[in-house]
This record gives sequence, structure tokens and C-alpha cells, in this order.
Amino acid sequence: MKATVIYGERDIRLEEVPDPVLSTGGDAIVRVVAACVCGSDLWPYRGVTATKEPHRIGHEFVGIVEEIGPDVSTVKVGDFVIAPFYDCDNTCVNCRNGVSFSCLHLVPWGEKDDMGGFADGAQGERVRVPHADGTLVATAEVPDDALIPGLLTLSDVLGTGHHAAVSAGVTVGSTVVVVGDGAVGLCAILASKRLGASRIVAMSRHADRQAVAREFGATDIIEERGDEGVAAVQALFDGIGADCVLECVGTKESMDQAIRSTRPGGMVGYVGVPNGGAELPIRSLFGRNVGVNGGVASVRGYIEELLPEVLSGQINPGRVFDLELPLAEVAEAYAAMDERRAIKVLLRP
Amino acid sequence: MKATVIYGERDIRLEEVPDPVLSTGGDAIVRVVAACVCGSDLWPYRGVTATKEPHRIGHEFVGIVEEIGPDVSTVKVGDFVIAPFYDCDNTCVNCRNGVSFSCLHLVPWGEKDDMGGFADGAQGERVRVPHADGTLVATAEVPDDALIPGLLTLSDVLGTGHHAAVSAGVTVGSTVVVVGDGAVGLCAILASKRLGASRIVAMSRHADRQAVAREFGATDIIEERGDEGVAAVQALFDGIGADCVLECVGTKESMDQAIRSTRPGGMVGYVGVPNGGAELPIRSLFGRNVGVNGGVASVRGYIEELLPEVLSGQINPGRVFDLELPLAEVAEAYAAMDERRAIKVLLRP
Repeated sequence: MKATVIYGERDIRLEEVPDPVLSTGGDAIVRVVAACVCGSDLWPYRGVTATKEPHRIGHEFVGIVEEIGPDVSTVKVGDFVIAPFYDCDNTCVNCRNGVSFSCLHLVPWGEKDDMGGFADGAQGERVRVPHADGTLVATAEVPDDALIPGLLTLSDVLGTGHHAAVSAGVTVGSTVVVVGDGAVGLCAILASKRLGASRIVAMSRHADRQAVAREFGATDIIEERGDEGVAAVQALFDGIGADCVLECVGTKESMDQAIRSTRPGGMVGYVGVPNGGAELPIRSLFGRNVGVNGGVASVRGYIEELLPEVLSGQINPGRVFDLELPLAEVAEAYAAMDERRAIKVLLRP
Repeated sequence: MKATVIYGERDIRLEEVPDPVLSTGGDAIVRVVAACVCGSDLWPYRGVTATKEPHRIGHEFVGIVEEIGPDVSTVKVGDFVIAPFYDCDNTCVNCRNGVSFSCLHLVPWGEKDDMGGFADGAQGERVRVPHADGTLVATAEVPDDALIPGLLTLSDVLGTGHHAAVSAGVTVGSTVVVVGDGAVGLCAILASKRLGASRIVAMSRHADRQAVAREFGATDIIEERGDEGVAAVQALFDGIGADCVLECVGTKESMDQAIRSTRPGGMVGYVGVPNGGAELPIRSLFGRNVGVNGGVASVRGYIEELLPEVLSGQINPGRVFDLELPLAEVAEAYAAMDERRAIKVLLRP
């Protein structure tokens, strides 16, 4: 089959790779209907993180179950399924605690599981899913094609934006600031809206992203950054800042922006993967009682909650995809995101 | 009147100072019935923080109202009152948000208010309270002498321990670890117990403090620290750590102990004033979804909730005082705490 392999900086290739084979009884093989490129895929693409040897890549996909092992009970051949951005058993103590990204048997896509099988990267034609019962969520029927982009966001960005909001404690009446206008930041706006936030500020400088932010529920846009950005936020909220600030970038500057935009006693929910060596400034948090909560989102546990609203069209997170390409053009997909010609690119095998 | 003045390292003197005088209409003068020495008072005492010029000291007290300004309406002359460890208006936006330590008109004891009056330090015979209505909580009647120690803990350590527990989200059934066995750590155990924690681990190496910890509700004691301490905590809790860890020390080592003792998806509630330049290690928090929440406790807002249980004897936080001295021996009170001969010293003017 065809699958994407990264060789190094700006070197993405679609290659012929071995077909996946069932091996452990609890696994399944899924034919990928749609996959996509993540902001974090750009790190090795840009050479920010080194690629020591060529390896498979991609961690977001939806598809149709083609084969299942004899121990699989919750999905069947022909089901349309959503996969989170990692494989998990959904039964261990961490999964039961709602932290499936800390699953004791976690398998990242594109790596071997602890039973010796391989979990394919998502940017390919098929993926072997080691823990099919724990990982895959099937829809009642095969959805309309128009719903595919929205369903694909359940694989990562919608659940991750939702995690930022949940981690910051967004609830009915909360005031919210979202730092970051990528796909995750936009989904954090949508998540805050559905959780009942009374006012949602998008910090964004790009007209196209501002438009999606407004559609998703942003009530205010702030283009300023740094001291001016903080002042603009405080001016909106009693001179003190917002209840909840969602950090969806991961740089020292964005975290600083988030902390300083939070009111005393408020909470930063952060999902931007921390870049570089920046640590959290404990004294400025301590004196103002600003908490910091979040991390890698355990999106598996959010799929059931968010899925019905995606299926019904009540929310339309698929709007974050502004470019769709065939899998054959995966290299162009990376380039388009790298050059900010697209917010997020959907790939069809 | 007599009041305590710190001159520098290990130089504490009781001196004759001017009597307080009402000046702003909303102020009151309280005759101190009991005050005490705080762990944070030891910083200037030990020379960890510099004392540039002699100044009044002490921030925890209970007493009897002797005079009130014409604008005071919630306390009257003769009332027994509890003061939090700071003066606040209890009406500004931060106070309304439950963060009275960030009061827009905060006055620390021993400093001038913004109207030019002086708020006396608590280790003295009398204190002028700038915002009497906002700051003071009166009891219905003058309490028995035996209740004084417990009531005095509402001024700081009980509310601060409670804040650690609330910040970490301790609730019915939570598993809790408390790092630090000083008065605040012990009160954090008591607070966790009354919030319904199912299991409470005290990390303590001192037999006398372990005994109070057990009285306050600790179910387990761990004497090990560092890697061994983490391993001991994990062994108690499914190999993953506790839901909530309360950091009540403020050093880099204690925060590290707290973070590593928390399970994935759990929360550190911290109230130990951060010492030195240590920052929070964002990557180890992010990967395991461990949140950090807390800061200086806004104890004013906790007094009403905790007071009835102190008055009824349902909780007995006054146990943290293991030495009582007349105010005249305030220098010895500092020495006893400095040399760890006492957990916490109560002073009677």
C-alpha cells in the first residue's frame, strides 16, 4: 500500500510500504477515508526536531474497518470509525481516570506496539490499530461525505481545543481569551462557545482565521500582542483579565501572553506543545493565584461527547480544513501548511 | 502601646510605639487577644530576606474591637473578631471573584494604607484595621479562651491549608498527598479530611508532627523523600500517584516531590511561598497532564465557611500551636520556631 514517510527536513515522500497484517487478536485494520497534517508534523518537516532515520508519519484519521481480530467486540467490518491521535486500551487505570494519553499500553501511530506489531502512520492507505476496542469509535452508519472533515477533527484538533477549555474550567458565563489562531485555537473557541462562555476573545492577526473565529463564537478580536495585547484584554474585562485563557501555541511568548491575560484567581488551560526550554514563572503565578492546567489532550475520552453535535451539524469544526488534496500530493500538503497558505490540509487516499 | 519590631537577622524587639488612631471613617482599632509567629516571619528573622530598616511585624491576630469609625457597620465595639493576614475591602472585583488577596485596596499589616493611615503589625497590643467592614469577621459572642488557638488559625494557616486543598480540587473520595508538615501542611490534612478525601498521606519525618497529622486525618505517613518518596507514594496509589498533592513548603525540592507524586491528570495545589528562582518544569507537567493551581490564599473568603466547625469543636486546628508565650517573650517565640522547638507559637499580649 501507499503511505507517507518523512526522510528529513522538507523531505516528505509517498512510498510503497508493506500492507498491515493482523497479529494480536485485539487489533483491526482500517482503510483510511481521510487523514490530515498536524501543526506538530511541521516540527520534523521544518527540521526543528531531527529525523534520525526515515519513518512513517501522520496521526489523525477516520476510515472504514476492513478486518478485525477474533477478540475485537466493539467495532465490526464495514464500520466507519474515528481514531484518536494515539492507540490506547481504554481500560487501564489512567484511561479510567480520563487520561488515556497516559494509557499504560499507549502506542503512537507510526511505532511498534509492545506485542511486536506495527501501528501504521495515519497518512497512508491503511492503518493497523493495536487496541481496536479501546481506540476506535464507530458511528451508527457510514456518514455523508460532507461530514468527513468535521468527524476528522475529533481525531485531534477539536478534542484538543476542547481540552484547553475544560482544563481552564470554562463553564456557563466564563470570560475566555484564546491565544493562537491555528486549527486548535479555533476549535478552542468553538469548544468554549458550546460550554457556555459569555465572551470569547480571539487573539488573531489573520483575516481568514478571524472570520472562522467569529463563525465559531468569538465575540471580540484582539490583534495586539505582548504588553499591548495584555492591555487590550484587561480593557475588556474590568481591568483585570479573563477568567479562562486558552494557550494553543506552545511558545514562551504565547504562554507569557496567556498568563498575563488571566485575571487573579483565573486559570490558563494549555495544549500548545511546549517549545524550547521555557519554564513556567512560578512567582507571577503564585502572587496572582493563576493556575496552569492541561497538557496533551486525551481526546479518546471526548469523542463520544462531541460526536453527536458534529453528526447533527450543530457544530461545524470541519471549517478548519481550508485545503483538500489527494494523498498523492502529501508533500504539497506539508508545504501549504508550512508556508501558511492553509490553516489545515485534509488528505484523501 | 507595645509592639514587635524587627531590626534585622535574629533581632526581634518588643518596643513602645504610638497608639493607633482612627482616621478614615471605615477603620477600627482592635485590641489583640492573640497573635502568632508565621513560618514566613522566619525569612527576615533568618536573614533570607533583608531587613533594610526596622519595621513592625506579624500578620495573624484575633481580638476585641475597641473603637470604630463612623462608617463601620458590620462590627461594633466589644465584638470578638478574626482578621485575615491582610486588610481588604471585600467589595472590589477581585474580592468578589474570591481573590481578596488581590484586593485593589489591599493593605498588608505593618504598612501604610493608601489613605495615609497605618495598619499596625499583628504582634502588638493593638491594630488599626483600615477596612474594618471588609476585613474583620465577628463571632456572635466572645468565645471561650480554649477556642482562641483554633480561631487564630482562621487568620492564616487553616485557610491556607484549605486553599491548597481547594486549589487541588480535593473532593469526596480524593486521594491526597501533603508535602510539608508545618502548621500549614497539617491544616491541609485537616482541610482534606473535611472535604471528604478517602486517603491522606502525610510526608513527615517528625514524630510530634506525625501525631498531629494522624489526629487531623492522615491515613498514611511517608518518611522518605526524593525518588524513594515518589516510589512510596506510587506504591500506595495504583503505581501512578495521588489525585491531589498539596505543596506546603515552597522549595524547588518540595515542588518537585509534589509534581512527581501526582498521578497523570491530577493536580498540585500549592501554597508554599516559592523560595529562590525555581520555575515550574512545563514539559513534565504537560506530558502527564498535571496541573498546578494555588498561590497566596485569600483566607478572608474562607473564614465564614470554616468558623462554625471551629466554634463547635468539630475541627481542632488550634492543635498546631504547641507553645504559648506572653508577647513580652516574642524574641523567644521566634527562636523556638527557628530552632524547630515548636511547630507554631501563640503570643498573648
